[in-house]
Amino acid sequence: MPSSSALSVQQLAAFAAFAQTLADSVRPLSRKWFRHPLDVDTKADESPVTQADRQVESALRDAIARHHPQHGIFGEEFGASHSGAEFVWSLDPIDGTRAFISGNPLWGTLLALLHRGKPVLGVIDIPMLDERWIGAAGSPARLNGQECRVSTCSELRNAILYATSPDIFEGAELAAFDALTGAARMRRFGGDCYSYGLLASGHVDLVVEAGLQPYDYLALQPVIEGAGGVITDWSGQPLSLESQGRVVAAATPQLHRQAMRVLGAAMT
Amino acid sequence: MPSSSALSVQQLAAFAAFAQTLADSVRPLSRKWFRHPLDVDTKADESPVTQADRQVESALRDAIARHHPQHGIFGEEFGASHSGAEFVWSLDPIDGTRAFISGNPLWGTLLALLHRGKPVLGVIDIPMLDERWIGAAGSPARLNGQECRVSTCSELRNAILYATSPDIFEGAELAAFDALTGAARMRRFGGDCYSYGLLASGHVDLVVEAGLQPYDYLALQPVIEGAGGVITDWSGQPLSLESQGRVVAAATPQLHRQAMRVLGAAMT
Repeated sequence: MPSSSALSVQQLAAFAAFAQTLADSVRPLSRKWFRHPLDVDTKADESPVTQADRQVESALRDAIARHHPQHGIFGEEFGASHSGAEFVWSLDPIDGTRAFISGNPLWGTLLALLHRGKPVLGVIDIPMLDERWIGAAGSPARLNGQECRVSTCSELRNAILYATSPDIFEGAELAAFDALTGAARMRRFGGDCYSYGLLASGHVDLVVEAGLQPYDYLALQPVIEGAGGVITDWSGQPLSLESQGRVVAAATPQLHRQAMRVLGAAMT
Repeated sequence: MPSSSALSVQQLAAFAAFAQTLADSVRPLSRKWFRHPLDVDTKADESPVTQADRQVESALRDAIARHHPQHGIFGEEFGASHSGAEFVWSLDPIDGTRAFISGNPLWGTLLALLHRGKPVLGVIDIPMLDERWIGAAGSPARLNGQECRVSTCSELRNAILYATSPDIFEGAELAAFDALTGAARMRRFGGDCYSYGLLASGHVDLVVEAGLQPYDYLALQPVIEGAGGVITDWSGQPLSLESQGRVVAAATPQLHRQAMRVLGAAMT
């Protein structure tokens, strides 16, 4: 196909099927390491990494290179290759490494396919719970094959809000987050990517985070949007490789607007 | 048997088997309500409660009254009956109601048997993950039938520390908690009773909480102690019906002492 053509529905469906096989193929590997002794190293950004992260990403990269050698890859552990390609995969082998190394099953493998820089396909795979959310541009998001849908919550005061930890917010971000959660019905911590799955399935209404990396959030967008939700950065801009890692995901546009208003007021 | 006799190993084993059947019997009920529409009410202490909490506790109370009519019961939702009995059951039908109502599987059913006021049997049942920790005085704790054991972590700086949320701490408690976690290797939020199961299995080294009720912590003690750990209030006193709801659970006596030292210094 010419590189200037739009992505066809058929192409995207084929890539979605490939993404499922990718996620299937590494589940045994990540499950094998879970609750087994691991060497935990600390990366430059202070986040932990283990041989499980590295082996899962290596297996994903090998499979992509084998089946789609012309595709680019952008991975948490091993960086970028062919990053100028029309199609680029974003990989987070173990999102929630802190959960993983403490025996907590709420971690996941995140896969996104970017077409000319825009995420068109996202997978949130939760191996220990046998749950997988998948979203593809123009199609309804699905949890284990069943269509899923965000809640109808449109008022901040009724919203259940999730974030991984208060420790992900720095400086003014924390005050803004506290202002927002003070106006919400309930806040709860812990979850990493799982929070966004719960949002896509209508159990949680709002997820607000900061300090995320592109491989943390690129897979989330097709899932949240495919479930009818809204996901942007804290300025309301679409997420991209260049976003600053501040994410607001909401069940409805009304809720998203209210969250943006509180965050915006607190950040200025 | 005369009420002055000590509890025999056989008696305790029979009660442990009964506790297993209790936990088995309510799993279908709590699972049925999970991720289904619920009426969420707010209790006097601002915590949420649903028909799932009430139905599960009612089923547990009915079964205990049927099989052990002379036993007392102390439950989160329906209070105390026969509370002066030699044997009293402490029940938390859904520990982690906030997790439960937001579709998060890390909630549990907690059962404890008190003999003359002291917890001698504890069950942490996690229905959605099919995991059950059980501890009985004088026996090794077990996860799904397999003996489990705390970690050997003896240094605070190496410890993985869990708590349900920073929001459970009030006033000086929060500063003390922050001082403690600042000296630990890692802190992570979210978990309710699940954190104590992870501690009993050696994945987490320290759990520090406040604002707990007796039905939240009485079931934990036989599990943590049976796994080789230490669990007390923040003054180092054994947990009882009269404790003030501040709990420190540690993998080793050394780690417990270090945690107590930091908490004690910050609370005075």
